[in-house]
Amino acid sequence: MKQNGNTAVLLMHCPDKPGILAVVTEFINQHKGNILYLDQYVNREEKVFFMRVEWDLTLFQIPKDKIEEYFETLIAVRYSMSFRLYFADTKPRMAIFVSKMSHCLYDLLARYAAGEWEVEIPLIISNHPDMESVANRFGIEYHVIPVTKENKAEQEAKQLELLKKHGITFCVLARYMQVLSADFIDHYPNRIINIHHSFLPAFAGAKPYHAAHERGVKVIGATSHYVTSDLDAGPIIEQDVTHISHKDTVEELIKKGRDLEKIVLSHAVEKHIDRKILAYKNRTIVFQ
Amino acid sequence: MKQNGNTAVLLMHCPDKPGILAVVTEFINQHKGNILYLDQYVNREEKVFFMRVEWDLTLFQIPKDKIEEYFETLIAVRYSMSFRLYFADTKPRMAIFVSKMSHCLYDLLARYAAGEWEVEIPLIISNHPDMESVANRFGIEYHVIPVTKENKAEQEAKQLELLKKHGITFCVLARYMQVLSADFIDHYPNRIINIHHSFLPAFAGAKPYHAAHERGVKVIGATSHYVTSDLDAGPIIEQDVTHISHKDTVEELIKKGRDLEKIVLSHAVEKHIDRKILAYKNRTIVFQ
Amino acid sequence: MKQNGNTAVLLMHCPDKPGILAVVTEFINQHKGNILYLDQYVNREEKVFFMRVEWDLTLFQIPKDKIEEYFETLIAVRYSMSFRLYFADTKPRMAIFVSKMSHCLYDLLARYAAGEWEVEIPLIISNHPDMESVANRFGIEYHVIPVTKENKAEQEAKQLELLKKHGITFCVLARYMQVLSADFIDHYPNRIINIHHSFLPAFAGAKPYHAAHERGVKVIGATSHYVTSDLDAGPIIEQDVTHISHKDTVEELIKKGRDLEKIVLSHAVEKHIDRKILAYKNRTIVFQ
Amino acid sequence: MKQNGNTAVLLMHCPDKPGILAVVTEFINQHKGNILYLDQYVNREEKVFFMRVEWDLTLFQIPKDKIEEYFETLIAVRYSMSFRLYFADTKPRMAIFVSKMSHCLYDLLARYAAGEWEVEIPLIISNHPDMESVANRFGIEYHVIPVTKENKAEQEAKQLELLKKHGITFCVLARYMQVLSADFIDHYPNRIINIHHSFLPAFAGAKPYHAAHERGVKVIGATSHYVTSDLDAGPIIEQDVTHISHKDTVEELIKKGRDLEKIVLSHAVEKHIDRKILAYKNRTIVFQ
Repeated sequence: MKQNGNTAVLLMHCPDKPGILAVVTEFINQHKGNILYLDQYVNREEKVFFMRVEWDLTLFQIPKDKIEEYFETLIAVRYSMSFRLYFADTKPRMAIFVSKMSHCLYDLLARYAAGEWEVEIPLIISNHPDMESVANRFGIEYHVIPVTKENKAEQEAKQLELLKKHGITFCVLARYMQVLSADFIDHYPNRIINIHHSFLPAFAGAKPYHAAHERGVKVIGATSHYVTSDLDAGPIIEQDVTHISHKDTVEELIKKGRDLEKIVLSHAVEKHIDRKILAYKNRTIVFQ
Repeated sequence: MKQNGNTAVLLMHCPDKPGILAVVTEFINQHKGNILYLDQYVNREEKVFFMRVEWDLTLFQIPKDKIEEYFETLIAVRYSMSFRLYFADTKPRMAIFVSKMSHCLYDLLARYAAGEWEVEIPLIISNHPDMESVANRFGIEYHVIPVTKENKAEQEAKQLELLKKHGITFCVLARYMQVLSADFIDHYPNRIINIHHSFLPAFAGAKPYHAAHERGVKVIGATSHYVTSDLDAGPIIEQDVTHISHKDTVEELIKKGRDLEKIVLSHAVEKHIDRKILAYKNRTIVFQ
Repeated sequence: MKQNGNTAVLLMHCPDKPGILAVVTEFINQHKGNILYLDQYVNREEKVFFMRVEWDLTLFQIPKDKIEEYFETLIAVRYSMSFRLYFADTKPRMAIFVSKMSHCLYDLLARYAAGEWEVEIPLIISNHPDMESVANRFGIEYHVIPVTKENKAEQEAKQLELLKKHGITFCVLARYMQVLSADFIDHYPNRIINIHHSFLPAFAGAKPYHAAHERGVKVIGATSHYVTSDLDAGPIIEQDVTHISHKDTVEELIKKGRDLEKIVLSHAVEKHIDRKILAYKNRTIVFQ
Repeated sequence: MKQNGNTAVLLMHCPDKPGILAVVTEFINQHKGNILYLDQYVNREEKVFFMRVEWDLTLFQIPKDKIEEYFETLIAVRYSMSFRLYFADTKPRMAIFVSKMSHCLYDLLARYAAGEWEVEIPLIISNHPDMESVANRFGIEYHVIPVTKENKAEQEAKQLELLKKHGITFCVLARYMQVLSADFIDHYPNRIINIHHSFLPAFAGAKPYHAAHERGVKVIGATSHYVTSDLDAGPIIEQDVTHISHKDTVEELIKKGRDLEKIVLSHAVEKHIDRKILAYKNRTIVFQ
């Protein structure tokens, strides 16, 4: 979702207590912030309060570079809050990792080119040269960094170097078929979004369409999630499914699956760009 | 689906060859059968031909008690066909197994009472007394047969006795929470339909809603399948899903899941009654 | 959703201003109410604030019979709020209207009998005798009140009399095929829930499955809504759909549609019982 | 679906009679054709038989340029069949019409560029210059032909000229916002595919998302159909929906709708390319 150019977003959670919501909205209101968006959720079993609030900074009295400090001092410490503050005019910078399939890549780049997302995409990294023509259509830098068991650490170092050089804030694995090391993932905790071509936790790992076909399921799915060191086990962001029948060969599952994968991945990426995802205990709160 | 009173249904499969479909339809046509339904499917990887054909017997020249023999001799042996022949005027006889939850039971009995299904339901068996009032509302015999680890074999023998006495042709486990023994299952191969409250193969076994909640999935499902000696691993008949969010507690998953379970189970039961399911290699061909 | 026995629910809307949410939550908190549920929504185009808040009354300092007055005086007038206050221990009383089809009726009664809903169902009214056996299964009073063009006013008067006598607070038309007069509807504004067997506004009026089949749509639906004097045009509460194909005859659309109708209707009824629907300008805010 | 390079496809319908299926399969088999695909459907109310059969021509004894004649003479006339014969090695040639929105256009071109479809796309026509950059990314000719009430006939003549020059066999309106004249449509009967951004027949015509929002529906949809002289009333090919809530502004409906529109349109286009759609009496038989 396109954000108003001059807003701040606060994503936060803390132990639930009466009055938190009032205190936070008061903080914004009394300093002349205009609240544009507010969504809160209380996990009553764990007694945790979560909130996303977005407000217009135009008349806001606290200078941008002080908001974090003031909020921390005046509100957060009193409620043992964990929070993250974002400014809409600071666009996230996304790197796409891709292997040989183009469908997710095209879907991301089409939205980007159409100006649907407030994001920068300076960089595409691949372990194959195949997708270079796609990158060229959109005028984006494309780096081929082939990975094998032997050179993995070295190649990941190259990748991290590139990401750092381009000020990348999050990565999107668009059917990237290499498994990232725990070390790599540590550089981007809850900031690497992957699309897995099954309805997790069913058929994690390799060849999920073949496994689904073998099992004779009547529904296939795709799952977008943040990457953690547990393969295909990180916090799920979005999932969707489609019905299949005995008539569908593995090839048809793959084909039907492509539509699911690209939509589910793009939705997750959009939510991330819009600062609408809060990862907590291997699950996500996805604000609408 | 309500079947015409006087039809025959043939469900068959065999190694694929040119001309099978023509040969079978010819057999029916030349003996004055009027084909009402025909659906065929060729699994081209395994080169197997599957077909369901239903025809009106009103003017059919071969006597009912000879059809199987003639078909076997004239067609089936030539093509190494496996087939099953059913007559619409011979209603299947269904026993329902239930534990303490009423939603699936009510859905089955409501359709039965409304005359939607060509089936007889002489018998409900439970390991608890709770559902007796539901059985009474519909005037169906209700037997309480509690099962423990120690008495399981003995109690299953009682159940099988009852099923035999009532001429039961298939069983429906309507959220029946006991695991049937391999021996029991052998009495009704591909004739025991279970509803599992997850989207198999995810969350097989106990407490799938708790597991789904823990994993933070964004979609839950229900699966109907034929029971085999592998728990929750038999051929899947139908599945459906619904979207959930972080706001849904386990209690809400259970509630949303009830609607899925009862619809998915009833759909599977209907397909079975209509002779529209062919189980093959732990998967099902479900004719429309 | 089963509500805690001793809670209050406030459904309200008013012109949006900063601080409303804080003021309301403050009101509850300072009088020792424990907030169990809070959902708010701001329609930014029309600048209207909507909220549903539910709180535990156990330690609440304002006596139940005074809450409305205090809230009105202290909060509502200042913000020009429209609000409704409900107590969980006062169960709504539902009358079901039915004609000749049992599927929706059974679904409602099954949930009722299973104790899923905090509601009383003292009464079923029908223009035909057919469904009496269903009412008898559940031990609910059944009244046959046949309606024709000539006797409509008189028969509706009888119905209203019965509803009044039984303290009915809302009505559910479970595939009731008579059109209620504007006068009747005025007795229960936004308190008559109907299920229409199409995806409104497509195929309003009679025989929607025939019309859908004729049009060759590939998806059919069902719509639950509050009844207004405009036929099938009242505020929509919930809708759902299912895919169909050229193979589906009208009879099959009707069959597939039954599952949609009963689930969509029951969901709407549940939301109403839970005080989760706010009708505004011919639309509904449905709190989760 | 990618077709085998050397196959023939027969799409046919005729009054239903016993034996048609056998006769057609016999025709193919006896001349050494290898049947790869067969799907048939009998509309029992109208007594019409429909079939799609595809077979490998590699060993087929009838020369390609004679197949139509022989089939007509030997089979079609005897059964009063209407049929169309296609060869997989003759790719359809598609022209895309677009206005200012890129999402459908990108989805079509991404699949094309990835080689998913057996089709040629020589030409994109638009009434605006905006999408030229997209056409350039994919190296496809782009023609701006602005249309007003006054110049419509003349501009359509230009368009038809271009289509003829490029040997276009079918057109795809990818959110093209001009209404084609009856004369234009006559040049491509059932060969112009449009995507309408609503769930037809609801909200036909202009601004369907605004109308849907106003009506307060809880589900929005998209519909692909063949264009006829009745606006938004031609035979429907595919539809899909997504759930919405009171929280969704018109802008969000438009955004959610984009994903539906592009998938539904691409699916329809694929079915058309694969010769899997048979239009009959303003409806479609869509073979799987």
